[in-house]
Amino acid sequence: MAHWVPTPVDSSCYPQGFCAAGVTCGLKESRRPDLALVVSDTVSQSAAMFTRNCFAAAPVVVSRRHCQQGARAIVASSGNANACTGDQGERDALAMCQAVAQSLEARQGGSCSADQVYVCSTGVIGVPLPIEKIAAGIPLAVEALSPAGWEDAAEAIQTTDAFRKMSGRRWLTNGTEVRLIGIAKGAGMIHPDMATMLAFLATDAAAEPSLLQGALRSAVRDSFASISVDGDTSTNDTVILLANGRAGNAPIAPATEAADQLQAHLSDVCSELAHMMVRDGEGATKLVALDIRGARSDEEARQAARAVAKSVLVKMCFLGEDPNWGRIAAALGAAGVDVRPEGCSIAFDGIEVMAGGCPQPADQDRLVAILKRPEFTVAIDLGTGGSGRARFWTCDISEEYVQFNARYRT
Amino acid sequence: MAHWVPTPVDSSCYPQGFCAAGVTCGLKESRRPDLALVVSDTVSQSAAMFTRNCFAAAPVVVSRRHCQQGARAIVASSGNANACTGDQGERDALAMCQAVAQSLEARQGGSCSADQVYVCSTGVIGVPLPIEKIAAGIPLAVEALSPAGWEDAAEAIQTTDAFRKMSGRRWLTNGTEVRLIGIAKGAGMIHPDMATMLAFLATDAAAEPSLLQGALRSAVRDSFASISVDGDTSTNDTVILLANGRAGNAPIAPATEAADQLQAHLSDVCSELAHMMVRDGEGATKLVALDIRGARSDEEARQAARAVAKSVLVKMCFLGEDPNWGRIAAALGAAGVDVRPEGCSIAFDGIEVMAGGCPQPADQDRLVAILKRPEFTVAIDLGTGGSGRARFWTCDISEEYVQFNARYRT
Repeated sequence: MAHWVPTPVDSSCYPQGFCAAGVTCGLKESRRPDLALVVSDTVSQSAAMFTRNCFAAAPVVVSRRHCQQGARAIVASSGNANACTGDQGERDALAMCQAVAQSLEARQGGSCSADQVYVCSTGVIGVPLPIEKIAAGIPLAVEALSPAGWEDAAEAIQTTDAFRKMSGRRWLTNGTEVRLIGIAKGAGMIHPDMATMLAFLATDAAAEPSLLQGALRSAVRDSFASISVDGDTSTNDTVILLANGRAGNAPIAPATEAADQLQAHLSDVCSELAHMMVRDGEGATKLVALDIRGARSDEEARQAARAVAKSVLVKMCFLGEDPNWGRIAAALGAAGVDVRPEGCSIAFDGIEVMAGGCPQPADQDRLVAILKRPEFTVAIDLGTGGSGRARFWTCDISEEYVQFNARYRT
Repeated sequence: MAHWVPTPVDSSCYPQGFCAAGVTCGLKESRRPDLALVVSDTVSQSAAMFTRNCFAAAPVVVSRRHCQQGARAIVASSGNANACTGDQGERDALAMCQAVAQSLEARQGGSCSADQVYVCSTGVIGVPLPIEKIAAGIPLAVEALSPAGWEDAAEAIQTTDAFRKMSGRRWLTNGTEVRLIGIAKGAGMIHPDMATMLAFLATDAAAEPSLLQGALRSAVRDSFASISVDGDTSTNDTVILLANGRAGNAPIAPATEAADQLQAHLSDVCSELAHMMVRDGEGATKLVALDIRGARSDEEARQAARAVAKSVLVKMCFLGEDPNWGRIAAALGAAGVDVRPEGCSIAFDGIEVMAGGCPQPADQDRLVAILKRPEFTVAIDLGTGGSGRARFWTCDISEEYVQFNARYRT
């Protein structure tokens, strides 16, 4: 879906008290920017979520330990994942944090410690990180830091992404203007060795510490955890939220209207970034929303959605523009959740093709016309009578996907 | 892998007291044979395993109820799955059994009831069965029954299979010769709407009723349940074993040497049929064995194998002949089982590429040469120190797979 281009983010959404940069340190043969840095002028609250893959990469292991007492920065390199690299990998990830802390102290004065820095990497698995190149690049990135540096940072975390992924919001919380920016990378986890999604979010809103982690978890569940391109989970997936309070609002407390607002904007930004990832799937031609209801629980609805979204045979139908709902039924039936065929229904953009487990008369020409759309929705009722729901986004796989992923040599 | 042709089965393996047939009743536009019948002269013991898909097809629903007190026949139609067809589907599946019972009584005398007949269908989902064509074909199939009719039956259950799938064994049990034949269909679940695997096994060995179901479950676990082409589970998958005792041996009792022999031969026949299915994957170029060890349990080893076997990114590596073990590690790490990177290893045909969670120096030219082989083994130790093991078979997905599955219109 390379024809699709996101609208630019208005710089009025850039949060106060943050700088960002993206520079080239030489990890990518293309000499494209490959080192991103996000810095808060002051110590910031933070929340983070990491991959649950057993082969969590070294930067994930290090970041999980860091920023327990506040965060100053996020450093991210692209081109090498620093995954499956053993003890040396952890030493290298820690060295990246130390280099950032030292450079920030040298440039800005004041103190910054390595454990106030989150570290991320994305790229090829199982190759030692060229740490000397990164160590040389970090002072350059610190030098380049700017309140307007978000586009550069967004570009420097890209691997095979066809376009930069950014989203922002600005709103009033109890009369004070606050801002939220998000940048992300991830072209649908489709490239050899570069299957990672990263997202960095920064707001100048002040919020009580107890609020942030729950808000991030909820936003991630309905965005980055509700998309699927090829179903694989990376060793490096990371989402980080920094909140430095520089807007000067009274700290947002849980279970208030201001907290609901923050949640809504955070969820919107994450969803926009996630949809950009699905649209950016190399060799994908369609964005398909799965709207699941009638599940015993939201979790069962998500599990059913994942089963349909990951089915290779279903993706083939989407690519072939074939309203072959039997494959969707077969995927649902094997999802491992409660499905009651006698109450189950499937519809493409409002046209029901199956109800009560039986075929429904539907105009084939209208159905094929729907499947030819670049975006459409498959609505599925699992028939249990439960109130569980989920909304999920997926795409197809084309011959170009196969060529890109199999024929490309690292 | 269309170049591969199985060796024919020696007719001396055809079991005593069984007849089989395959005829054309007109379900397939190609006018290829589409109605198969297997009949035991006398009431036979039986065991059966069915899909666990929630949308189990009507013939599965009917077959689950049948043959509790003994079996006489298996009838199978190909071209239409009779799945997602509601109450009419169940009436049609039952009508197939009734037609077989009536035709057998008319032809052979003696009594046969509908509930002594297993029924199977495979083909397009969500289209009512053309029951009148099948009802007209069943007397023709009964007329065609022959002790040598197994090849015809094997052909008549094919859908997109490139070749007939048969396997047989003959051995002495306590001095008496017994025979076992198996026929199957399933080209790797790759065709639109025809994603089903069926296998019918018949032996003239006498066995105690308590033995058969356990022996079949064990054989299926290590064969049909240990292969993956695209990971989807059909609405119609069925495996049936008939044992009519016509060899005249003393009934085989559980936990005896004779039972072990029967198990070994049954497992061999099922494995041969399962491997034929993987080799027959349209657009697949490689047969890859996954040899998992060091798991906490056999079940966790199988789960890890399934995760690797189903990973689209891993399949792309196999197709691209790229020894990119990072994708295998990522798939293992997301499998939901205990994996200890520090004890984990991965090897291609004996050449270790990862050990202790770290890359190993390996000759890239030798590795690429291994991945160019039409068959190779990936050995994986999950590093838990446990004794759980599994052996699993998978294949790649090529551009031809995508063309075949997406571009083909039903």
